[in-house]
Amino acid sequence: VWDRDTRWLARLLARLHPADAADLLEQLSGDDFAACVDLLGGQLPTSIIIELRDEYREEAVEVLPDDAVAAVLGELDSDDVTTILEDLEETRRERILDELAPEDRASLEQGFAYEEETAGRLMQREYFAAPEFWTVGHTIDHAREHADDLPAEFFEVYVIDPAHKLKGQVPLATLLRTPRDINLSDIMEEVESDIRVEMDQEEAAYQFQKYSLASAPVTDDNGRLIGMLTVDDVVDVIQEENTEDLLALSGVNAADGSDTVLDSVKSRAPWLAVNLVTAFIASAIIAIFEGVLDQVVQLAILMPVVAALGGNAGSQGLAVAVRAIAEREMEGDAGRRAILRETLTGLANGVIFAIGVGIIAFAWFRSPELSLTISVAMFATFIWAGFSGIVVPLTLKRAGADPAVASSVFVLTLTDIMAFFSFLGLATLILV
Amino acid sequence: VWDRDTRWLARLLARLHPADAADLLEQLSGDDFAACVDLLGGQLPTSIIIELRDEYREEAVEVLPDDAVAAVLGELDSDDVTTILEDLEETRRERILDELAPEDRASLEQGFAYEEETAGRLMQREYFAAPEFWTVGHTIDHAREHADDLPAEFFEVYVIDPAHKLKGQVPLATLLRTPRDINLSDIMEEVESDIRVEMDQEEAAYQFQKYSLASAPVTDDNGRLIGMLTVDDVVDVIQEENTEDLLALSGVNAADGSDTVLDSVKSRAPWLAVNLVTAFIASAIIAIFEGVLDQVVQLAILMPVVAALGGNAGSQGLAVAVRAIAEREMEGDAGRRAILRETLTGLANGVIFAIGVGIIAFAWFRSPELSLTISVAMFATFIWAGFSGIVVPLTLKRAGADPAVASSVFVLTLTDIMAFFSFLGLATLILV
Repeated sequence: VWDRDTRWLARLLARLHPADAADLLEQLSGDDFAACVDLLGGQLPTSIIIELRDEYREEAVEVLPDDAVAAVLGELDSDDVTTILEDLEETRRERILDELAPEDRASLEQGFAYEEETAGRLMQREYFAAPEFWTVGHTIDHAREHADDLPAEFFEVYVIDPAHKLKGQVPLATLLRTPRDINLSDIMEEVESDIRVEMDQEEAAYQFQKYSLASAPVTDDNGRLIGMLTVDDVVDVIQEENTEDLLALSGVNAADGSDTVLDSVKSRAPWLAVNLVTAFIASAIIAIFEGVLDQVVQLAILMPVVAALGGNAGSQGLAVAVRAIAEREMEGDAGRRAILRETLTGLANGVIFAIGVGIIAFAWFRSPELSLTISVAMFATFIWAGFSGIVVPLTLKRAGADPAVASSVFVLTLTDIMAFFSFLGLATLILV
Repeated sequence: VWDRDTRWLARLLARLHPADAADLLEQLSGDDFAACVDLLGGQLPTSIIIELRDEYREEAVEVLPDDAVAAVLGELDSDDVTTILEDLEETRRERILDELAPEDRASLEQGFAYEEETAGRLMQREYFAAPEFWTVGHTIDHAREHADDLPAEFFEVYVIDPAHKLKGQVPLATLLRTPRDINLSDIMEEVESDIRVEMDQEEAAYQFQKYSLASAPVTDDNGRLIGMLTVDDVVDVIQEENTEDLLALSGVNAADGSDTVLDSVKSRAPWLAVNLVTAFIASAIIAIFEGVLDQVVQLAILMPVVAALGGNAGSQGLAVAVRAIAEREMEGDAGRRAILRETLTGLANGVIFAIGVGIIAFAWFRSPELSLTISVAMFATFIWAGFSGIVVPLTLKRAGADPAVASSVFVLTLTDIMAFFSFLGLATLILV
């Protein structure tokens, strides 16, 4: 396959759907992939490049010559162009932009005027807008005459006034079933979403979900239409945010497809370092009770059971809370109700597992005092775990931080401290 | 507000977008919500009911009288009808279906012929299909004449042959910009997705993401068109699957918005019970080394540090692996490369944190032997954590199980056992 048969490869890729072709290329190892892109050069279809996963796309753009990249940019919708320009180093980006015609250049640079992770960065500047007084017939005729100026894909016609302010929208399905002589103003619907250019992409994604949208207009602060967001870009945002939450909960910094060992270490070592400190804090708690540990060695054997179960209960509550916050189910009164519910859940599970642990410990060591100690400690730790599993993320949220990041370390440290303190403290009272 | 002013309430809700009205109702406490639905009765707009979150919708349908529910069903697209019928108990479902006209009834029951969580359950049976030989003009005229039979929202016209087999699709945007006399067969594109009725909804959602779709046709095994999936339903599936993964990783069984303490206990106690068993297995490992623990109490103080850091490293690798599997980045060769990468990451972090832990332990206890013991144990545990964090989910996946469920408990147990065994085992060799 790798005997440099460029034409065979180009033909193979052309036969596949771009997404499938991209999948195929991604299955190659790093070096083979670069060699392959290098070989194809300008022949690698643009549509495949944009389908590649982030890290592969960056690699491909790196390998391709400037003029090939410039040619690629000319063919794409503006949101895809922004994506590729983001991958480039600044000097190279300037060089490539210089190769383009001035008017293209100006429009491409516009996308960069908006901050990262905003609706402005995500949107495309191509859309189909029409004034209120146009009829259905006129709108369709206009679309036929200016077929080339329309975006490749769109689901609504946006209705604007002379000042370019957004008045409403007409879904294409509505346009299709309406007689030619009806005015757009008679069939247009209100735009339910309210997405501004500078809005966080997460907020825009939330509106897409809430109103079940396939696309939505993007306006500036004066209500003027300046772009369009489509659901495929929004789905990517939703996936990204979900991945961030899941990884953050396990103490991994947002990895952008970390494919090397160095990337992995960089994204994980910081939280392990924090954990190193908190683990020694928990050790310091144990050290306070060195005396009783020295006398009753069984305490050292059972101690991790209390910590493990308490930590597990805390993580469960935390995961539920982080999810509920992400889906905006924790606003207003719901937050207070959740704290009560989680604490009561801790209490209920505490009763169940205090009894369970007590029985097993008694069966093992035949000491009613030891059994009582671990039961009471288990019970206290569960209630505490339930409470901190919800209060920590809610507090982080209220402080304006991401509730998924860092809360795991906090909750586990809090439950560890409670577990060791209550178990060894009680042991000092009961057993010595 | 709660002075039973039905008309005021009905007017308020009618003024809001259904999704916003549903949000408002959800902010009420359980009893107020039921009272409110009861009060409104048949006046509660259908569009609001379908926007309510699962548990509220079930509650609402429970409170409403049969004829109100039957009326609701008549107004909705078939996928929404299926959602509501799913909420009902079987006897009541039968009774409500009996109230409907026989032809409605038959079509409603069809949705139930497909299994839960398949594309068939999720799809709607309304779509717009046209034969190949129709022109653009004829298609638009047909849509105008049969405006009422078309689905409320659609983005493509599906092209079928006389046997109702799917031949291709024409996006509405393409239809709009094409002159009236062109045949559909000249502008239709190939359907890239291949979604069958009995396909798992997760697989269908994957195709939506891969091909950036807004809607897609659903076919039976003979390639005949029988329904349509739209992206808003798919986004809900994506969110559901993400939530399941995140909760499963923390040992919470798929909670359907568990709002009561009993629900919470039910969804969490099973994994805590498993953890109870595994925690005592780890204790048994410690018990083997009772002798050395009795002699050197510092071991009991430092033991949890090794377990906590090792567990954290394992969880990090696990989260990355579960995410990568969900996004299908672990197929073929990629899996083997990931195992190597994770083990090497464990080795690299192992070196860093073995040194860190060793230095802190030495500063605290001034014993080079103890410091050496904890360093070597930490190093071994990290490598083991990296390895098991990836191998456990991959093995579960290969065995056909969900890699997110249960893997957390396995990985933590494996790292605990390794931590205690290596630390106390080495201590026996070096310190005694």
